[in-house]
Amino acid sequence: MSKTKKFLLDDRQMPTQWYNVVADMPTKPLPPLNPQTKQPVTKAEMSMLFPDALIDQEMSAERLIDIPDQVQDLYKIWRCTPLVRAYGLEKALDTPARIYFKNESVSPAGSHKPNSAIPQAYYNYKQGIKHLTTETGGGQWGSAIAMASQLFGIDLKVYMVKVSYNQKPYRKLAMNTWGAEVIPSPSDTTEAGRAALLADPDCSGSLGLAISEAIEVAVRNPDTTKYCLGSVLNHVLLHQTVIGQEAVAQMEMAGNEPDVVIGCFGGGSNFGGIGMPFLRKNLTEGKKIRIVAVEPASCPKLTRGVFQYDLGDTVGFTPLIAMYTLGHNFQPADIHAGGLRYHGAGSIVSQLLKDGLIEAVAMPQLETFAAGVMFARAEGIIPAPESTHAIAVAVREALQAKEEGRSKTILFNLSGHGLIDLYAYDQYFAGKLTNYDLPDSEIRRSVEQLDGII
Amino acid sequence: MSKTKKFLLDDRQMPTQWYNVVADMPTKPLPPLNPQTKQPVTKAEMSMLFPDALIDQEMSAERLIDIPDQVQDLYKIWRCTPLVRAYGLEKALDTPARIYFKNESVSPAGSHKPNSAIPQAYYNYKQGIKHLTTETGGGQWGSAIAMASQLFGIDLKVYMVKVSYNQKPYRKLAMNTWGAEVIPSPSDTTEAGRAALLADPDCSGSLGLAISEAIEVAVRNPDTTKYCLGSVLNHVLLHQTVIGQEAVAQMEMAGNEPDVVIGCFGGGSNFGGIGMPFLRKNLTEGKKIRIVAVEPASCPKLTRGVFQYDLGDTVGFTPLIAMYTLGHNFQPADIHAGGLRYHGAGSIVSQLLKDGLIEAVAMPQLETFAAGVMFARAEGIIPAPESTHAIAVAVREALQAKEEGRSKTILFNLSGHGLIDLYAYDQYFAGKLTNYDLPDSEIRRSVEQLDGII
Repeated sequence: MSKTKKFLLDDRQMPTQWYNVVADMPTKPLPPLNPQTKQPVTKAEMSMLFPDALIDQEMSAERLIDIPDQVQDLYKIWRCTPLVRAYGLEKALDTPARIYFKNESVSPAGSHKPNSAIPQAYYNYKQGIKHLTTETGGGQWGSAIAMASQLFGIDLKVYMVKVSYNQKPYRKLAMNTWGAEVIPSPSDTTEAGRAALLADPDCSGSLGLAISEAIEVAVRNPDTTKYCLGSVLNHVLLHQTVIGQEAVAQMEMAGNEPDVVIGCFGGGSNFGGIGMPFLRKNLTEGKKIRIVAVEPASCPKLTRGVFQYDLGDTVGFTPLIAMYTLGHNFQPADIHAGGLRYHGAGSIVSQLLKDGLIEAVAMPQLETFAAGVMFARAEGIIPAPESTHAIAVAVREALQAKEEGRSKTILFNLSGHGLIDLYAYDQYFAGKLTNYDLPDSEIRRSVEQLDGII
Repeated sequence: MSKTKKFLLDDRQMPTQWYNVVADMPTKPLPPLNPQTKQPVTKAEMSMLFPDALIDQEMSAERLIDIPDQVQDLYKIWRCTPLVRAYGLEKALDTPARIYFKNESVSPAGSHKPNSAIPQAYYNYKQGIKHLTTETGGGQWGSAIAMASQLFGIDLKVYMVKVSYNQKPYRKLAMNTWGAEVIPSPSDTTEAGRAALLADPDCSGSLGLAISEAIEVAVRNPDTTKYCLGSVLNHVLLHQTVIGQEAVAQMEMAGNEPDVVIGCFGGGSNFGGIGMPFLRKNLTEGKKIRIVAVEPASCPKLTRGVFQYDLGDTVGFTPLIAMYTLGHNFQPADIHAGGLRYHGAGSIVSQLLKDGLIEAVAMPQLETFAAGVMFARAEGIIPAPESTHAIAVAVREALQAKEEGRSKTILFNLSGHGLIDLYAYDQYFAGKLTNYDLPDSEIRRSVEQLDGII
């Protein structure tokens, strides 16, 4: 008798509302501030960058927000995604723990990013926007928003961090195939880019700088052109809660409730997406499910950063956001989990961490790749370098259960597959990767530049 | 109200038997012959290459063959796959036709190939085999069998056609990540390879030559090492029928029966996989569903080849197979649909074509890429260059329905995604691809070398 491995929901069982955890938070997240006035950013100020509906979501404290029909229709290209029992990994670890993963790698872009790309493109389209700009680091977000923009006939310009542009030609080609223009950042198309190139013609770029370039292009033509972002902001986290809502229903089908829910952490969208609907059970039903964010040891804002107002970009075009941060000038090591190389965390997850409602752990790069290879060989799926961070903590939890001789139910989010990131595995097998130990002095130097408003 | 787009089957609805069309064929396929004796190949002869269970399946005329529990468990890593209504493509074409596709791209290797890779690895494992050899062209089969071998702890050596080895580094890296050794063919590890290199040190290889190399290694150590193949053979086609069996059930869920079922065609495994369970309805229930195989115009064995006994490889290690063929020395143009660059067709599909029970059409390369880009932008999924052949014919059928002003139900198999084949799209956008018109004289020259047994 063969075993049940997957728990599926059909189109009619797909969530029709997003879950906004702000409604249930004991301490609400702090508002974004205008960097000049230090006053909360107004809707009018935000409308330079975003369509009204997204600004409303960004500021909303409503518990449930309807997912538009057209967005639901497009979600159904790949959603609901499977919840999978990782029998292969359990066997490889010889653990009494039950391990489940939510498989977000089955989307056309190969990651969870389309969950927010589709509604973002939709709301821009509804407002008559013809052009979008954005940035991308590793390329997961860029691919997703390229796909989504194309579905709504919106023209997209992507500023891609130059080091990734050169390292990841397939990501660029995916964006081109979905009709987007991809520009290596820093570029000579913006003042921010030209200034960076003047200072250093060989500058390989950073996410913060690419954000500055993308925003600069959008604010030049605010009536036809808007900017969009794939993580950090409240509305992005909101959209991603389809992941966790489905997983809650699927864990019920599996007849198990997780003891621990694990997501890798860049700006918080994938982590929030899987985690918030389970956190809701803690906040409203008195459950005690551990919700664990996993960051790379080389970019440890949650475990070694400060809780402060900080900028989202390098130049200073974004509002100040209340976040755990390493400082907006922090230059993370060039690890392969490009999606986790960001200096700050979104304000919701930052507040939750401050209040002890979620946990965070930093993982060294080599342990994450070892876990990724183990997973690929036991479950058949090659995970994205970002996702290997969640897997590595799931492995630690499963081995601890084995040591303690007790059962435990572990759930992690497989945020994406690694088929376009195989160069990273090649480098790992060749012994060319390291753990990038990060001295305290470097973090201190970077956070000292912040001006201490909180 | 959002629309139902996907039709899903859960783990318990997965087929538990493969469908063997041989049982229902009015004319049975001709047996493979020993090239020396011209007598039907014996089980003993085949056991040099394959485990007993696969030989039994190769020769079987039983209608239904049980899928072992362990294979079912591993199928469940990604199966059942979704059947999707292509509303986006319908809208882009403004057609009255209903278009559905079976999405085989959601497997961990990104194609339908694991459907046969898993059982092949399983039966070898059950027989105590420790090493497998195989060849791969485009790399879809190599990736799938690398994944499957790893799941059973079998060590795998892949001979990869050198031109692909150099063009598709990510495919090689995927195989490495799943633990396989990948050797560019021709190589100096076999006599066949050394002879080819001696004749032409710059030889870029061919699938037929890579098969010769892989077989040579296997026959050296028949007790511990076997050979495996990702298409052409009856047992491979058998395993792939899980696709079509699921699709039959899902089309019933959708409340529609296809008028036409379309699959791209290399050796016949993906085409047979989607097509045979629908052909069964024609053969046993008197239905008249058109079953259409789509080959590249540059490798047109079905539409311009001859029905003859021919070798499966270049050197002559395989049996003679009754097939539509362009001759085993035919050198197909270097199109990007690497999986369709093979000189011959499997004996079952060849017999069915000869008997007028299926149709075949050859598509020029540029039309396939145009259809692929249209699909990517309308449905969000970037298709493999192989799969674009099926899409292109679906597009033709849908436009014909529009012209005739009548409805029609079209089903095609999306055999894989193109995320690791993006270089092909890049070349297409850059205007560097052509249709490779193939003169009759070239086909004549190649088939004249056959000795005419049939």
